[in-house]
Amino acid sequence: MTISGLLLALLAIFAAAKLFGELAERIGQPAVLGEMFGGIVIGISGLRLIDPHNAILHLLSQLGVVLLLFLIGLETDMKRLISVGGASVSVAVAGVALPFAAGTGVGLLLGYPSNVAFFLGAALTATSVGITARVLSDLGHLKSDESQVILGAAVVDDILGLVLLAVVSAAAAGEKLTTLAIAKMFGLAVGFVVLAIVIGSILAPHLIRWIARLRVAKALFFTSLMFAFTLAWLADLAGSALIIGAFAAGLVLARTERGGDIEHEVHDVAHFFVPIFFVLVGAAVDLRSLNPMNAATRPFFIVGLLLTIVAIAGKLLAGYAAFGRPLRKIIIGIGMIPRGEVGLIFAQVGLTAGVLTSGLYGSVALMVMTTTFVAPPALRILLTKSRRERDDRESALCGVVTEAMSDRDRPD
Amino acid sequence: MTISGLLLALLAIFAAAKLFGELAERIGQPAVLGEMFGGIVIGISGLRLIDPHNAILHLLSQLGVVLLLFLIGLETDMKRLISVGGASVSVAVAGVALPFAAGTGVGLLLGYPSNVAFFLGAALTATSVGITARVLSDLGHLKSDESQVILGAAVVDDILGLVLLAVVSAAAAGEKLTTLAIAKMFGLAVGFVVLAIVIGSILAPHLIRWIARLRVAKALFFTSLMFAFTLAWLADLAGSALIIGAFAAGLVLARTERGGDIEHEVHDVAHFFVPIFFVLVGAAVDLRSLNPMNAATRPFFIVGLLLTIVAIAGKLLAGYAAFGRPLRKIIIGIGMIPRGEVGLIFAQVGLTAGVLTSGLYGSVALMVMTTTFVAPPALRILLTKSRRERDDRESALCGVVTEAMSDRDRPD
Repeated sequence: MTISGLLLALLAIFAAAKLFGELAERIGQPAVLGEMFGGIVIGISGLRLIDPHNAILHLLSQLGVVLLLFLIGLETDMKRLISVGGASVSVAVAGVALPFAAGTGVGLLLGYPSNVAFFLGAALTATSVGITARVLSDLGHLKSDESQVILGAAVVDDILGLVLLAVVSAAAAGEKLTTLAIAKMFGLAVGFVVLAIVIGSILAPHLIRWIARLRVAKALFFTSLMFAFTLAWLADLAGSALIIGAFAAGLVLARTERGGDIEHEVHDVAHFFVPIFFVLVGAAVDLRSLNPMNAATRPFFIVGLLLTIVAIAGKLLAGYAAFGRPLRKIIIGIGMIPRGEVGLIFAQVGLTAGVLTSGLYGSVALMVMTTTFVAPPALRILLTKSRRERDDRESALCGVVTEAMSDRDRPD
Repeated sequence: MTISGLLLALLAIFAAAKLFGELAERIGQPAVLGEMFGGIVIGISGLRLIDPHNAILHLLSQLGVVLLLFLIGLETDMKRLISVGGASVSVAVAGVALPFAAGTGVGLLLGYPSNVAFFLGAALTATSVGITARVLSDLGHLKSDESQVILGAAVVDDILGLVLLAVVSAAAAGEKLTTLAIAKMFGLAVGFVVLAIVIGSILAPHLIRWIARLRVAKALFFTSLMFAFTLAWLADLAGSALIIGAFAAGLVLARTERGGDIEHEVHDVAHFFVPIFFVLVGAAVDLRSLNPMNAATRPFFIVGLLLTIVAIAGKLLAGYAAFGRPLRKIIIGIGMIPRGEVGLIFAQVGLTAGVLTSGLYGSVALMVMTTTFVAPPALRILLTKSRRERDDRESALCGVVTEAMSDRDRPD
């Protein structure tokens, strides 16, 4: 790819993101839905202006998710995240176990061998924290208790999902993984997050004081980015996910005295890369491979439909595992629905290992696409409704104070 | 390259840029000098932490120059640029003619065939507007009359240089270019800039009014970027250079009512990509191929030294072609000295065409490296001196007003 080609691709991506983002906002939907739809329009199912599998665009989009999760971490209050930690863990565990069992069941019922069924089940487990966090942020709802549970659960289920991926991959390759090996993998992934937050919290204030002594331009900006990139890279090395390292870096830096400044400085750069990710998610959708009118693709459409149903039902039920707090469980369940890149990574690994056929890859893609596109409008309806109900309640109770209250409650 | 690999490479690049940028500032030099030196340390002559010829890093660095020139355009007052236009054009023409003649002369004197000598001469013609503009900006001197002449001349000599490249390449390939073909190429390149500025100035205010009606987040930011990318791409298509299109886009948008806001919004993203370019310039420097102690590389070291001398002398003399205004000609001459990417592109084309040997490529690289590293500290000495002299003069003349004057004169 030449630099001219890259500029053209970025032009197409930004134009699609902003044009369809604008349309989405005008019909009252989150902008991210428009960005993904814009991706379908310019991608392999549409005008084919960009190739979603181009190595460079793919790297830039991954940099986008890393920066998005760093930014989300910077906007998250770690204390509140920990205070809802119990609810998050139960939602995550239920949200991995239920869809995995149901997806495997669908595979077995349809007569697929058990290793295929396991892959199908595993692909349903991990919520795309990037998509959900972006929707909550677009709707101005990132700081609510429900959102904290969703964020925490999405991080935990990413870790569980990655361990599960290693297990089913080994099983598919005919290897036997001992319980000890699985426990070690799981311990490393969880241990990394805990260590990153503990050691990071000790080091970060020193880092911030050291930056204050530098004369070079944009020292805070670059040092923060380097902190995030380092933790992301270490997370990957420890068998966890890049985005979990970036999120942990954001959590840690948010608690330093320059947290607000860092968020402000990283904001513009993150927003340059983030639409690349969401447009590419849409651009990779191949509608033709799932045409229900075509006899050759119909069976995969039906498998995809069944997977979608259990994927949605599993996470909705998992939302009710958020015990112990007066939370709107349905919001949590819906927030956990979107499967994104992780589901596709599972399908890709299955395809490469020769366990999944390209037809079944399409079924997983249909599940990813539908769950991703269903959650944003559903969340919007519920969040608008819940705000209106609360406003009405407050209005009945305290009359004139309402205006000030709802202003205060409205996140920035 | 995986995303982990990209994060590691960016970590190395940012760390080198900021560490050596900080050191440069502490010894009173422009940060860009530190960034290039940091590139040598982590590049092929040093620790080899990054590969400067990696396709993805190369694309990101080119995006950096495009954004840098867009930003420089946004900070430039088109009226002042045009008011010194005569001086710019004469500096550019002299600054292409003198080094080309002298470089060709060096080649012929050393007994190289004429097509080789022409390539060596042509590689000396084009100033790296990116490096010079960055140095002037680092030193807070971008808005002086001398800087306007340098910027204008650097844009014009890039156009002249690109036409010259086409001519010597055709000559090297044994093709005959008619005067008409050369005139057409030149007309297209110049015509593009004029048309881009005229049509852009008509369209830009409508664009800005249209953006004001959008609801989607960061509409101004993305529309401005798309405007810059479009002009850059069109410039390339018209036979001009990408960076000239980006510069023209900045000039045009700077004159709209949102010019200041656009500059502010583009700033952070540009500063993410820009260090990648300067670190890669340093990382590509291969000191071993020019070792004067080694009998095999000594002749190329000597050719490189002679080329450097005529490259510096040619541009210094060209500075004195800035007639008709009370300008510090020596500052203009020194500002024109750095050859960067364009000189290397010439050498690369010559190498690919089989006209230059890899030894002579090294000679051109030595010229590029030396001119690039010599100009920043020289400019700094002169600009500090000129400011002190002016302050002294003002102090003698008007006593107490001095403080306010020098504050006002100090660019932001």
